[in-house]
Amino acid sequence: MAQIISEKRDVEFVLHEQLEVGDFSKFEKFSAFNKKTIDMIIKEARKLAVDEIYPTVKEGDEVGCTFEGNGVVKIPESFVRVYNLLKDGEWTAMTEDPEWGGQGMPKSVALAASEYFNGANFPLMMYPGLTHGCGKLIESFGTEEQKAVYLKKVYTGEWCGTMLLTEPGAGSDVGALETVAIPQGDGTYKIKGQKIFISGGEQTQLSDNIIHPVLARIEGAPAGTKGISLFLVPKYRVNKDGSLGEFNDVTCTGIEHKMGIHGNCTCTLSLGEKDNCIGTLLGEENKGMAHMFLMMNEARQLVGLQGFACASASYLNAVNYAKERVQGADLTNPKAGGVAIINHPDVRRQLLIMKSYVEAMRSILYYLAMCYDKAETAENEDEKAMWEGLAEILTPIGKGYVTDKAFEVCSHGMQVYGGYGFIEEYPQAQLLRDCRITMIYEGTNGIQAMDLLGRKLGMKKGKLFMDLSAQIAKTIGEAKKVDGVADLAGKVETVLNKLGEVAMHLGKTAMSEKVKTAFAFAHPFMEATGDVCAAWMLLWRATIAQQNLGKKKKEDIFYNGLIKSAQYFINSVLPVTMGKMQAILDNDSATVEIDEASFVS
Amino acid sequence: MAQIISEKRDVEFVLHEQLEVGDFSKFEKFSAFNKKTIDMIIKEARKLAVDEIYPTVKEGDEVGCTFEGNGVVKIPESFVRVYNLLKDGEWTAMTEDPEWGGQGMPKSVALAASEYFNGANFPLMMYPGLTHGCGKLIESFGTEEQKAVYLKKVYTGEWCGTMLLTEPGAGSDVGALETVAIPQGDGTYKIKGQKIFISGGEQTQLSDNIIHPVLARIEGAPAGTKGISLFLVPKYRVNKDGSLGEFNDVTCTGIEHKMGIHGNCTCTLSLGEKDNCIGTLLGEENKGMAHMFLMMNEARQLVGLQGFACASASYLNAVNYAKERVQGADLTNPKAGGVAIINHPDVRRQLLIMKSYVEAMRSILYYLAMCYDKAETAENEDEKAMWEGLAEILTPIGKGYVTDKAFEVCSHGMQVYGGYGFIEEYPQAQLLRDCRITMIYEGTNGIQAMDLLGRKLGMKKGKLFMDLSAQIAKTIGEAKKVDGVADLAGKVETVLNKLGEVAMHLGKTAMSEKVKTAFAFAHPFMEATGDVCAAWMLLWRATIAQQNLGKKKKEDIFYNGLIKSAQYFINSVLPVTMGKMQAILDNDSATVEIDEASFVS
Repeated sequence: MAQIISEKRDVEFVLHEQLEVGDFSKFEKFSAFNKKTIDMIIKEARKLAVDEIYPTVKEGDEVGCTFEGNGVVKIPESFVRVYNLLKDGEWTAMTEDPEWGGQGMPKSVALAASEYFNGANFPLMMYPGLTHGCGKLIESFGTEEQKAVYLKKVYTGEWCGTMLLTEPGAGSDVGALETVAIPQGDGTYKIKGQKIFISGGEQTQLSDNIIHPVLARIEGAPAGTKGISLFLVPKYRVNKDGSLGEFNDVTCTGIEHKMGIHGNCTCTLSLGEKDNCIGTLLGEENKGMAHMFLMMNEARQLVGLQGFACASASYLNAVNYAKERVQGADLTNPKAGGVAIINHPDVRRQLLIMKSYVEAMRSILYYLAMCYDKAETAENEDEKAMWEGLAEILTPIGKGYVTDKAFEVCSHGMQVYGGYGFIEEYPQAQLLRDCRITMIYEGTNGIQAMDLLGRKLGMKKGKLFMDLSAQIAKTIGEAKKVDGVADLAGKVETVLNKLGEVAMHLGKTAMSEKVKTAFAFAHPFMEATGDVCAAWMLLWRATIAQQNLGKKKKEDIFYNGLIKSAQYFINSVLPVTMGKMQAILDNDSATVEIDEASFVS
Repeated sequence: MAQIISEKRDVEFVLHEQLEVGDFSKFEKFSAFNKKTIDMIIKEARKLAVDEIYPTVKEGDEVGCTFEGNGVVKIPESFVRVYNLLKDGEWTAMTEDPEWGGQGMPKSVALAASEYFNGANFPLMMYPGLTHGCGKLIESFGTEEQKAVYLKKVYTGEWCGTMLLTEPGAGSDVGALETVAIPQGDGTYKIKGQKIFISGGEQTQLSDNIIHPVLARIEGAPAGTKGISLFLVPKYRVNKDGSLGEFNDVTCTGIEHKMGIHGNCTCTLSLGEKDNCIGTLLGEENKGMAHMFLMMNEARQLVGLQGFACASASYLNAVNYAKERVQGADLTNPKAGGVAIINHPDVRRQLLIMKSYVEAMRSILYYLAMCYDKAETAENEDEKAMWEGLAEILTPIGKGYVTDKAFEVCSHGMQVYGGYGFIEEYPQAQLLRDCRITMIYEGTNGIQAMDLLGRKLGMKKGKLFMDLSAQIAKTIGEAKKVDGVADLAGKVETVLNKLGEVAMHLGKTAMSEKVKTAFAFAHPFMEATGDVCAAWMLLWRATIAQQNLGKKKKEDIFYNGLIKSAQYFINSVLPVTMGKMQAILDNDSATVEIDEASFVS
């Protein structure tokens, strides 16, 4: 049967040949995860994804969620069985401490399982995904008591979790939120406010309690982000024996009708309508934003994975379709009758664009996950800091760049299907629709670009960017020694050097009175940086492939494909990247200069 | 009230200041259409669009069409009233001969009305749009008898029309179709076959008959495109007195569930299920493809307009939203509290991208329409041929490039809305979904790119391309004389020269054994050509704007906006275009070389 979610061989390649994640098993923390175990895990994950999760994706889209009034939300029934399988198979907290119900896996290994799960049905995976994020907050900032009550139940998926940030007047600007927390004198707080866009905010089919980490402002706290605290607010209060107590006055008042991710309910939640919503402080007073920030990178990487997983599925569908669909004669043999459309240059071009982006995105995301494993197993503080810094600077790429490109890939995936791509009977339309949200939530891609230029680029006097450049240069250096890819390496080097020039220029401009012009180029800069990272990954892959050629015929087909991806991207995409960087250097400020009134007269 | 479909001032600018379409009134054919009349027409069209058509767009999307079994299709009820208003207002055949119920307008003038109508609800406008296309075929190829029976009723919208090309095995490859026509010896044919993706293929609410031009193969005719003929097949036969006769055995067997354009039914039609479907030949035997081709440019331009109209509406919505939505502080004044998001550089960048593309697309499409008016009023055959040639070469740009960019604009339009963009309650999601089909139907944009490179570029030994270049060079020459835009003109000239080089290179490559590599760059070439055309139009606009500055304060706001669009596009987009062209010249052939098996291992 044709592969429908992710290319098995390529996942194995990234894990074992490019990143060699099996090597983490030499550290005690990850000693259980040698190559053999990893392969077993991935095999199980793939099986679960293909056999159980994927079959629910269409129903999830078509049936969607319904708000039945009186606070009741119904999610697709088929999700329940799958959620229980994920829970029973202990897939809900793969990377967490076994003490709290986790599996203690390296992040890079868990990512491969997540790739399959999210590629199969990411709207479904949002339920355990947010639950995991909620657990992470409790683990990181909870008191011993909070951990004892909630953590294991959340990590094991017995109770679901969410994240309550957004309000009608506070989207990208979280600091504008108005939900209040009134101290009760007993260490608890009464919470009052309205939250919107809460994924998985209400349901009863997956869990009998839902734990909401809530951003709110303690009465009298300063305005803006520095007065925001984080609270733990369960849907039902929990008795001392762990059983469920009183309803905690968290009511769903409606769900959104969205363009995609229909299977995940997007709820409006009203807290304390009856003045009876009690929360406990999670972490420190007025440190809510800082606490959230600590979790944000991981959440953003998950969103990158969601977008990428759509792209990967869309790509495989497109290849399968293009090999089967006969339409039109070959350009060089017009009289011989119809051929499969994969033979037409424009279809092939689109497939090769998709292939090279999918491979590059996979490597970027796995590398990002691996940075955490490297930090975890670092031999000293400097090394640890370096890997953490790489994860920091690569996060806007892994979220912003990846989801931008994932959406483009999904659009190509629709185009290859022709008219059938637009018909909901086929899978491409849902993938395009679902993918689109990943450019928006968890910080719009504009916010990601600002994060890269405004925060990450300047961090530690530019050390993060220099470390990233050094890693890329290392790959270039190695590729230069290998016949067949040395030329490509030289081209990536040229682009990397130009990126350095652009970063310098933008960094300076951002410090000058032209700061707005600099930020008007934040997104193009993220795109250029992403292109260079993609080229880096593709060159790295091609270098390994080139060295392995000629050993096994079947393997050569795969390795040659990797070389072609790199060749295509470096020769046909990087010249465009050069143009993008030139535009940044040219520094035109029309964006800033144009009168607001001139947009529409 | 904020403008919601098209910017009134910009439409007026293109008509009267850029293209000066009122001048056509000096020719007898268009003598009724002086500036005053034109403005009156546009005003009425705008009123109809805003007051009557636009209010149906959301219901059309939400309710959509339903297949009720037994061949019955129901379209949104609110469309009926609007269709009748269009019919009663005589908007259904604006450019056609009054003899047949038309209004005899210049195409460029009619386009402005169409822009408003399509921007208000293009899925609805597909019903009269296809009806008009059907009429055009009857007018061009019908016998006197066919014209007498059908033409006026179709042009006036009393009967609806369609276009039956696609079959399950014949999409882009129309030549593969299998519908047969069996001569009955009395000049009529029995038609038998199945057609899919037929927009407006069945309904009873708008008209009591539907006229289907059908591509079919006469029994025994050659295989492929050269054996295809065109037939006129009514849903109900027509008696000699013009009254409706017997049902003609054209049955709808189902409709598609699509990602967008829900208000337009996409039907599967079965012809001759009971061996009782009678058609008459329209035009010459085996000339069906040639006849269709003659109509194709116009149909493609209409699709370009549909995509563009979505982009225009999405842009206006985004500007309106960005001026109202307060979120986050100003970058240069972080302590002063929230500002409207139009002040944030990344939002402004997206708005300016949208603005410059929308303006460029509007000018491209109106110019294209104007080419026909110029041809119609040409003083000699050479001039006429030149304008017809310009229309030919600009058609793939007006369809392929415009709809590619329109979809990008709609995606920006969603992004500016943040999370609200993804919610169907707001207009941006539908615009994105509806817009996406325009890249696919009426020849996918890959087909458009092949048309540009494989047909139009080489036509008349490259004369079309040279004429286009000469037109662009003329604008550059004029701009060079105007302070304030002369610099911009120089930059457009550089890009135009490079495009010439690229066209030469691709033309040669297409003739060599590397033909497939050339066609793998067909789409990038269309994109580069489109970028140059966009720059041309924006430069032209800016040149006029620059010369009008300083006369009226309110007008200066508008004119300065035009100059900023040109400045932005030329300084920040054209460097990327240069990169795209460099990639074409670099001529990498990974696309062609990659083994089919290497796509997925």
